[in-house]
Amino acid sequence: MNLVEALLAGDRLALSRLLTQVENGTTEGRTALNELFQYTGKAHLVGVTGAPGVGKSSLVNQLALHYRKLTTKTIAIIAVDPTSPFTGGAVLGDRVRMRSLAGDPGVFIRSMASRGTLGGLAHATSAMVQVFDAAGFDIVLIETVGAGQAEVDIARLAHTTLVVDAPGMGDDIQAIKAGILEIADILVINKADHPGLENTERALRGMLEMAHSVKRIFQHHGSFEMIEPTSREQSNGSQHWIPPILKTIANDGTGIPELAESIDRHATYLESSGDWSLNDRSRLETELDALIQDTLNHRFRSNLPDKVYERVLDQILERKLSPWEAVESLMNGSQP
Amino acid sequence: MNLVEALLAGDRLALSRLLTQVENGTTEGRTALNELFQYTGKAHLVGVTGAPGVGKSSLVNQLALHYRKLTTKTIAIIAVDPTSPFTGGAVLGDRVRMRSLAGDPGVFIRSMASRGTLGGLAHATSAMVQVFDAAGFDIVLIETVGAGQAEVDIARLAHTTLVVDAPGMGDDIQAIKAGILEIADILVINKADHPGLENTERALRGMLEMAHSVKRIFQHHGSFEMIEPTSREQSNGSQHWIPPILKTIANDGTGIPELAESIDRHATYLESSGDWSLNDRSRLETELDALIQDTLNHRFRSNLPDKVYERVLDQILERKLSPWEAVESLMNGSQP
Repeated sequence: MNLVEALLAGDRLALSRLLTQVENGTTEGRTALNELFQYTGKAHLVGVTGAPGVGKSSLVNQLALHYRKLTTKTIAIIAVDPTSPFTGGAVLGDRVRMRSLAGDPGVFIRSMASRGTLGGLAHATSAMVQVFDAAGFDIVLIETVGAGQAEVDIARLAHTTLVVDAPGMGDDIQAIKAGILEIADILVINKADHPGLENTERALRGMLEMAHSVKRIFQHHGSFEMIEPTSREQSNGSQHWIPPILKTIANDGTGIPELAESIDRHATYLESSGDWSLNDRSRLETELDALIQDTLNHRFRSNLPDKVYERVLDQILERKLSPWEAVESLMNGSQP
Repeated sequence: MNLVEALLAGDRLALSRLLTQVENGTTEGRTALNELFQYTGKAHLVGVTGAPGVGKSSLVNQLALHYRKLTTKTIAIIAVDPTSPFTGGAVLGDRVRMRSLAGDPGVFIRSMASRGTLGGLAHATSAMVQVFDAAGFDIVLIETVGAGQAEVDIARLAHTTLVVDAPGMGDDIQAIKAGILEIADILVINKADHPGLENTERALRGMLEMAHSVKRIFQHHGSFEMIEPTSREQSNGSQHWIPPILKTIANDGTGIPELAESIDRHATYLESSGDWSLNDRSRLETELDALIQDTLNHRFRSNLPDKVYERVLDQILERKLSPWEAVESLMNGSQP
């Protein structure tokens, strides 16, 4: 029995090994992905993002516990930290602390630190999601730190995106970018027992309304499609998902059942509105295009001798070579 | 005398023809760009962006008038409207209204509506900027509508980016995205005689502080480099540009001299800090990479038979083909 067959039979060691292969981008990993892909498309992909310190990991752990206690659903967790390889330890430490989930075969946790390019990170995450999906996990929780483009890209992998905030983090942290609010399907204020809850809620509600107003403005001007092409917009117009703001205290589990219910409601909404399959198409098209792009770039770069690129760029800066001339000479393999 | 020689000799008809060639991406246009590139790198590129209705065009016109009256500087204006080809008329209409600049050989105005992809728009704009730069214009004003990714990309072409707001546009319009505020070197509140000025100023100041606080947070966490790699950050740390908030009334020219002075001060800052050449390198590297990417993609797509891409995507959605298998089969030219 090979790794793929073992994975499909529920072998956790095979799962772990395949995730490593896939994360490292080995030939074996890619072959496995090809075989596994036919079994994907069933899992509910849930992204969880927000600034450092808001308690995303605890929230994700509590959600997993909740599903395991009250449902038959199996849960995979991918903790992605795009900030630095050095913080990988902290994420891992958090996982180790999560004793309550240890030994449950219905939960699988995987940490992933940054490696290579950001595009590579989103791509590796996408591949790992496919492995979990094929392995039959009902819900894949994708946890990312921060509010930058990397998180937005990773969040786009998900059907349902949670943006997490917390009171008392100072105005700085509360200032989650409007960009990240726009991708939120559900807003969570964690640490809801901390002082400053009302301020945080008011700020979030304001920014949420602003974000959606801006959306409407650009829609009204007929340019929204170009500014943010997304499958989230309603095609039938018969209903509209309004992102709820939920309050949780991950430490003692307060609000977790309501959050889980909201996540389920969003899945139901996606299915009934047709957005589930639009989301699927959009995600896979993005992945296909990125793979095409990567493959073309990789082929091109691997044929470029060392330092040729830098030398060409220097010549452009000195205005000795135009960008187009540079591309032509690079494409023809000559060394200007 | 060919078009390039005529352009370098100051022939305005040759300039106009070359801009059309370049905008349409003709072979003649590309050849001209290659010849002209050696004469570029001197102009001060100034981006002007903001939501529809804040009066960007009037502001740009007044700035041009100011420079022409009080300095010897020559001014090129590129008005880019990425929203839709249909609004091209409005932009053009605005240009036609600008009688005060008509007939001045030291000013050249060019409107550009959306055509092709957004990447293509940024690229076409970049090429037109190079034509104006080579033609010897001292300042190139690049005016874009909106606050989406397209505007951010186009703003990245500039040395100095102005983000324009106005009072009384309602909270909706005031809610310029944090993302666009982050790229602002100078914030302008136009229509400063309209009611609601203080609210707008307070909101902008708050969002500006938030945007820069968020930057600091991510810098502190060591991840800023990855989230927003930019040449704007100080490498020497000896000084720091704090985006000023200026108030203008474009209709009667109030605040325009102060704005022009602020733009000049930013250019001086860029030169003294070394950011001018960092900006140049970053811009040209981005252009080189985009050209490489485009060329690879174009070569690949033009070799793909019609509808093969869509058929392959359908097969991925049906889980009959994995994304990697799809790429491999597309790359090998076979038709799955």
